[in-house]
Amino acid sequence: MLILHVHVRVRPEFVADFRRATVENAQASVREPGIARFDVVEQQDDATRFVLVEAYRTQQAVAAHKETAHYAKWIETVAPMMAEPRSRAWYTAVCPGPEGW
Amino acid sequence: MLILHVHVRVRPEFVADFRRATVENAQASVREPGIARFDVVEQQDDATRFVLVEAYRTQQAVAAHKETAHYAKWIETVAPMMAEPRSRAWYTAVCPGPEGW
Repeated sequence: MLILHVHVRVRPEFVADFRRATVENAQASVREPGIARFDVVEQQDDATRFVLVEAYRTQQAVAAHKETAHYAKWIETVAPMMAEPRSRAWYTAVCPGPEGW
Repeated sequence: MLILHVHVRVRPEFVADFRRATVENAQASVREPGIARFDVVEQQDDATRFVLVEAYRTQQAVAAHKETAHYAKWIETVAPMMAEPRSRAWYTAVCPGPEGW
């Protein structure tokens, strides 16, 4: 299981719009067969900071996600909302095992 | 749903020991009634870096976790393995809703 954490900081005036666009993308993404989870969380002490936690079953699923219409729409919609470039880190799951995601 | 990300960097010689102790703690923690998920991931390009992603149903569950024997054992076991103090950030879940964790 390949886990991607995407850290985003948005401009304060776009927090609600970013949340809406990102939920729409997450709900579509989690229906992709190769994606087990696509969670969106917002920092408690700074509502402009979000983390997307994406769990992919295979490397192929990572590539497939990039080809979807919802990903393209999300990228285009949120690009002007970002306060700084988003940062990404890739992880492998230590636990739970593949059945637990 | 209250989400805690704990970022840990361990000394290289302790990576395997840290992984083992942390899996044991995660497997016990996820059986607590107030904990929905307790995931452990390891950074792909730096095996000394881990993130614990903990999903609590209530604030009470956060306090209850701190009182468990497995938490106390984990803290004591891994303290000497850390390369630097661990960092923590608290989030609220934007999506999925409480049923999705």
